Amino acid sequence: MTFQEKLDKIVKKNKSLVCVGLDSDVTRLRQDFGEAKQLSFNKTIIEATHDLVCSYKLNTAFYESIGHEGINALKDTCDYLVQKYPEIPIIVDAKRADIGNTNKGYVQFIFTYLGADAVTLHPYLGEEAIRPFLDCKDKGIIILCKTSNPGSDEFQNLQVSIPSLYDRAKMVRPLYQIVAENVINKWNKNKNCLLVVGATYPGELKEVRKIVGDMTLLVPGIGAQGGDLEATLKVGLNSKKQGLIINSSRGIIFAENPREEAMKLRNEINKYL
Amino acid sequence: MTFQEKLDKIVKKNKSLVCVGLDSDVTRLRQDFGEAKQLSFNKTIIEATHDLVCSYKLNTAFYESIGHEGINALKDTCDYLVQKYPEIPIIVDAKRADIGNTNKGYVQFIFTYLGADAVTLHPYLGEEAIRPFLDCKDKGIIILCKTSNPGSDEFQNLQVSIPSLYDRAKMVRPLYQIVAENVINKWNKNKNCLLVVGATYPGELKEVRKIVGDMTLLVPGIGAQGGDLEATLKVGLNSKKQGLIINSSRGIIFAENPREEAMKLRNEINKYL
Repeated sequence: MTFQEKLDKIVKKNKSLVCVGLDSDVTRLRQDFGEAKQLSFNKTIIEATHDLVCSYKLNTAFYESIGHEGINALKDTCDYLVQKYPEIPIIVDAKRADIGNTNKGYVQFIFTYLGADAVTLHPYLGEEAIRPFLDCKDKGIIILCKTSNPGSDEFQNLQVSIPSLYDRAKMVRPLYQIVAENVINKWNKNKNCLLVVGATYPGELKEVRKIVGDMTLLVPGIGAQGGDLEATLKVGLNSKKQGLIINSSRGIIFAENPREEAMKLRNEINKYL
Repeated sequence: MTFQEKLDKIVKKNKSLVCVGLDSDVTRLRQDFGEAKQLSFNKTIIEATHDLVCSYKLNTAFYESIGHEGINALKDTCDYLVQKYPEIPIIVDAKRADIGNTNKGYVQFIFTYLGADAVTLHPYLGEEAIRPFLDCKDKGIIILCKTSNPGSDEFQNLQVSIPSLYDRAKMVRPLYQIVAENVINKWNKNKNCLLVVGATYPGELKEVRKIVGDMTLLVPGIGAQGGDLEATLKVGLNSKKQGLIINSSRGIIFAENPREEAMKLRNEINKYL
């Protein structure tokens, strides 16, 4: 089963486009979660939300921060999900990308060792470099396109001059659109690519949706980062009223009642479907 | 002591611009290195080359590939270097970059847990995103500019249209040059930035050198990747006949005689100084 098929199934079953980001920052976890703090915390969140989500996203930064113990917590959380909720896709938000065969180490780590279903990658090195990821037909390869941070325009919105196919005039378009075009037209031979577009940039989201057709987009920036949910859904949904994975991390996992917050977000989204 | 000061000292002491990449791919290591294969192998390489190098570079992909055991090997190798050869800078080739505070996890991992002196980062998210790295004044923050892989032109050589300061005409320059300009003019407030430029692109290296003055550049692509050493040195050295960290990984560590290979590369480089 491909990542997209797995995603479609759970979206239907849980009636949800919500991805919960298990950004389990150890400095924010209560002591009473004990020795294996991150794992215990994650289990609590998973038990509270598994019927309300379309995926879980684990950002490696929050686990690597404490070294090999954190890697254990990351692995144990993935194992827990694979065993108990095998129908829920796991996205590892690793934001990796190296050259050529070096990526095989990361492919091994993320898809074999952790058993994840999808990974996020930087586009800067190009398609040729990340071929080892793109060759994983059943996995979701999620490329950073327009990120949610306030300073993402520094490079992503630079105006790029592209020779037109039809005349000598040059077309000018922002870099993030070139990334979207290359991914949909060239990188996506195995139909396993997705893009990241932040909810903090609905204008850019609209443009990306025009370029990529029905491709699924991972959308961070809702919740703590202040992204606009209504605008995101209005311009971001695809022709099937799907095609978005709406991530919320801190806004759900550190809420007083994570289940309530996840349900609120799911229901709010579903009003627009 | 800053990364640059540490680097300058060892360059002088060892008369070397050679960085040995400890890309200790487990699938290529002989069985007789035993249980802690990667660590034992790395120790052998370090003992054979420590008086011939200006730094060691550890690419995280080769360690993450086997999960937490690999992270242990990475950590133990860094500990070994810190204890036995504290004068040799450790570069962690992690190619990370996330948004804002999430990067604090990686800062913690690379500089506190591993005790490294420098890290490599993707530029795509912009300066604002990687501020937690840039704020580490004494560490080397090495930004990918023009990477050594054959397909790096896909985005890095796109022509970007930049409004000129002086007239209404637009200037057009390749993206990698804009990265270099932003890093030297804006990101480098703490004088702790470096750039990656592959030895496989001496033309681009020449342009980057013009833009960044005496800034130190990390140059991969020599050896197995076929980069041109002579061209690299002719166009890449700064006004002090320094400013390059020339990395070779497989070409040295998997050679029959790693010490001989490291010495050969060092001496070859020193002919041009």
